[in-house]
Amino acid sequence: MRSFAGRDILSLKDFERQEFFHVFEVARKMEDIARERKNIDLCKDKTLVTAFYQPSTRTRLAHEAAMHRLGGHVTGFADAKMTRAGDWYQESIKDTVKMLEFYGDVIVMRHFQQGAPHEAAKWASVPIINGGDGWGEHPTQILTDLYTVLREKGRIDGLKWLAVGDMRMRTMHSLGYALTQFDCPITFVSPPEMSLTEEFKAELKSYSLNFREVEHVEQAIAEADVILVEPVVQPDYTKARDERAGKDVGMTPSNYKITRELLTTKAKSDAILLHSLPRMDEIPTDVDITRWSRYWQEAYNGVVMRMALLALVLGKME
Amino acid sequence: MRSFAGRDILSLKDFERQEFFHVFEVARKMEDIARERKNIDLCKDKTLVTAFYQPSTRTRLAHEAAMHRLGGHVTGFADAKMTRAGDWYQESIKDTVKMLEFYGDVIVMRHFQQGAPHEAAKWASVPIINGGDGWGEHPTQILTDLYTVLREKGRIDGLKWLAVGDMRMRTMHSLGYALTQFDCPITFVSPPEMSLTEEFKAELKSYSLNFREVEHVEQAIAEADVILVEPVVQPDYTKARDERAGKDVGMTPSNYKITRELLTTKAKSDAILLHSLPRMDEIPTDVDITRWSRYWQEAYNGVVMRMALLALVLGKME
Amino acid sequence: MRSFAGRDILSLKDFERQEFFHVFEVARKMEDIARERKNIDLCKDKTLVTAFYQPSTRTRLAHEAAMHRLGGHVTGFADAKMTRAGDWYQESIKDTVKMLEFYGDVIVMRHFQQGAPHEAAKWASVPIINGGDGWGEHPTQILTDLYTVLREKGRIDGLKWLAVGDMRMRTMHSLGYALTQFDCPITFVSPPEMSLTEEFKAELKSYSLNFREVEHVEQAIAEADVILVEPVVQPDYTKARDERAGKDVGMTPSNYKITRELLTTKAKSDAILLHSLPRMDEIPTDVDITRWSRYWQEAYNGVVMRMALLALVLGKME
Repeated sequence: MRSFAGRDILSLKDFERQEFFHVFEVARKMEDIARERKNIDLCKDKTLVTAFYQPSTRTRLAHEAAMHRLGGHVTGFADAKMTRAGDWYQESIKDTVKMLEFYGDVIVMRHFQQGAPHEAAKWASVPIINGGDGWGEHPTQILTDLYTVLREKGRIDGLKWLAVGDMRMRTMHSLGYALTQFDCPITFVSPPEMSLTEEFKAELKSYSLNFREVEHVEQAIAEADVILVEPVVQPDYTKARDERAGKDVGMTPSNYKITRELLTTKAKSDAILLHSLPRMDEIPTDVDITRWSRYWQEAYNGVVMRMALLALVLGKME
Repeated sequence: MRSFAGRDILSLKDFERQEFFHVFEVARKMEDIARERKNIDLCKDKTLVTAFYQPSTRTRLAHEAAMHRLGGHVTGFADAKMTRAGDWYQESIKDTVKMLEFYGDVIVMRHFQQGAPHEAAKWASVPIINGGDGWGEHPTQILTDLYTVLREKGRIDGLKWLAVGDMRMRTMHSLGYALTQFDCPITFVSPPEMSLTEEFKAELKSYSLNFREVEHVEQAIAEADVILVEPVVQPDYTKARDERAGKDVGMTPSNYKITRELLTTKAKSDAILLHSLPRMDEIPTDVDITRWSRYWQEAYNGVVMRMALLALVLGKME
Repeated sequence: MRSFAGRDILSLKDFERQEFFHVFEVARKMEDIARERKNIDLCKDKTLVTAFYQPSTRTRLAHEAAMHRLGGHVTGFADAKMTRAGDWYQESIKDTVKMLEFYGDVIVMRHFQQGAPHEAAKWASVPIINGGDGWGEHPTQILTDLYTVLREKGRIDGLKWLAVGDMRMRTMHSLGYALTQFDCPITFVSPPEMSLTEEFKAELKSYSLNFREVEHVEQAIAEADVILVEPVVQPDYTKARDERAGKDVGMTPSNYKITRELLTTKAKSDAILLHSLPRMDEIPTDVDITRWSRYWQEAYNGVVMRMALLALVLGKME
């Protein structure tokens, strides 16, 4: 297996099966530290640089929190508009990275342009972690999800997945690539205008992923062991909440919603429900306290997984 | 006395008299550390999460600086617009807190909605500190002010207060609740449209607070030991400074201003003057170097008090 | 030599010749630490406060990264609009600094108004580092540049400089003051409307700086040992990049551009090329891999120099 020390985490297309399990093994060790709520000294001599060209809460803070748990330092920018580097009108990724690489020892980058972290990795002398690139990928999120499945179900192989949401999203790309390395059939459900692109489907076929697309959630939920949900509607940010009252709320068509009733009447008794959040109404809040919901654990594992990835690429864990 | 370890600091209504003195005692120990200008290791294994849904300098930075003095780590957001959690259009306090609680060990929250930190505390497994909630409360500021009085005057009981400003502000609510636990009569002076609400007055009476309202500062200043001032005017932010020149400046009606002349001719020789800043012209700058002014000490104590509160709720001080 | 402990770094006009060399000596020691990519414990008991009233990437992050390399803590604000202190409509530098001085042990300030850091230094009990003040100065950048020259050329005295760009910029003021302490003739080339002010030229003459102004880069490049370039055009930020395509790009008049062809045909074989970045097209990207370019080293030295300055003013290095 290739060493993780100094390695970029750009895409799950790059990941070999045994590498997934190695990351999960390191994450399992990190989980004990996170559970104790104690920052350790493992990475106290290292600095994480956050380069977020788009606002983010979970991805940015999960990386920052992970670095703090490892005792490390954090610097960077959370919104490109706040920086002169953020003059994306002006500065190339190369020029920005040729500066950022001196400010720390690993860079996590979110960018509105697909491929930006890959471009950064071409020039940087430190590892780049892709924190989401346009319509591209979101590898650390899907590693978190897979780890959550492993922890909650005790295994990954042999489980059936159901993915509901906008299939053009970067998380779906990372998920597709990841599942090619496991024995996991997956069913995709999305509004027609948000379905998998032909190009991506051809790629998944070439990797022998066992997948199908169905129209209705009800056709697939009964056999699913893992249900992963993403929003299919976005709030209208041009209006204040009050103006929008009763418009956004309840906007998700029922076919793309996972309700308590649907789970109770149709889902497997031991299925688990994942959502990377934030959510609109695709998972109503009364699902939170059912036995299916695992999205809070997923949020917790988000920190655990980033601890593992940071420790690995910084060469602090083998 | 209830333990402070793991406790939320939401309101001074929750505070017992002996708890005030316990916090002041811990603050006194912290003051020695702050004065030496040396970060210690007490909280190096802990992380503070700042969740500021509204811009703030003093409250946010005082908490951050306090955590750094204690050797701890800090992460979070300073403006909700910079985050997706900040899509308050979208995400519930519950969903946000179910994420933030994994990012650190204590959360300080400022929110534009009254009660938001209380809602957060319902869901979080870590302590929530209220950094100001709408028209609600601002407990850490008033704890700072009371500690400043104790340090500057040597006692709290038996001192007469005069509060000038907008009585609907959150600091006034925390002050009212706090003074019910001490032998401190208080006089309120405000423009009529900014006076104490009938509801809050009824509440203060039920707590046996010895208070009165007068129209003119001059009627009350002569007997005051502690003069606490808040702005009654706000700058017109829709205009640039130049356009506003000569309009904002000098806007505060003289009845709500504490001038050097007023202090010299009317105030007690040993009264002290507090202001949490920023100020408009309600305290002219030539008051800064009079013997009454204590607002810089108040700013200093702002860090000291947050050190005490963080160490207490993190279980690092008893 | 005056001690650096507790000293403000406001202007290079304040710097004596031997002080420059002392700073370079400390920077040389810091370089070994930076190269190892390991944060040390030297300043772990200290906190840096960043007070950036204008967006910045390089200056802010270089200071933050430097403080982290020294094991220290960082707090502050990166954009005044995100803070209430940033209500420059409202709050005086004095009031803001009388708060910030309690939040840490050294303050780096960028401000849109010339002289703001000097005003801050009048009131602060901790050292103020000028991170760029309007049209004023940018001392830490020019210290970085001089250190880069020393490291790349082995000496400073006896080298001829060529400065190209907008001569009204703050870096040019710091450069002019600095070179008065060395045996370094300098030639300035700028568009006429961006030339040195008469006032500044008179000042440079009074300091016996050996300088001249010429119209064309080609007249001066052949004899230059150090070529320092700044932009003469700014992108039109009111337009999105697409709208501006073909308008900004290639906008820099050829007389203020340092191309590969110009370097190859006219420049000294061992000249070095500096740019503090970000750049427009005044240095085309194909110059990056020529032997003249030293701007990435300059970026690296930006952290090294701030490590030296922070350690010095905090009294951690002598």
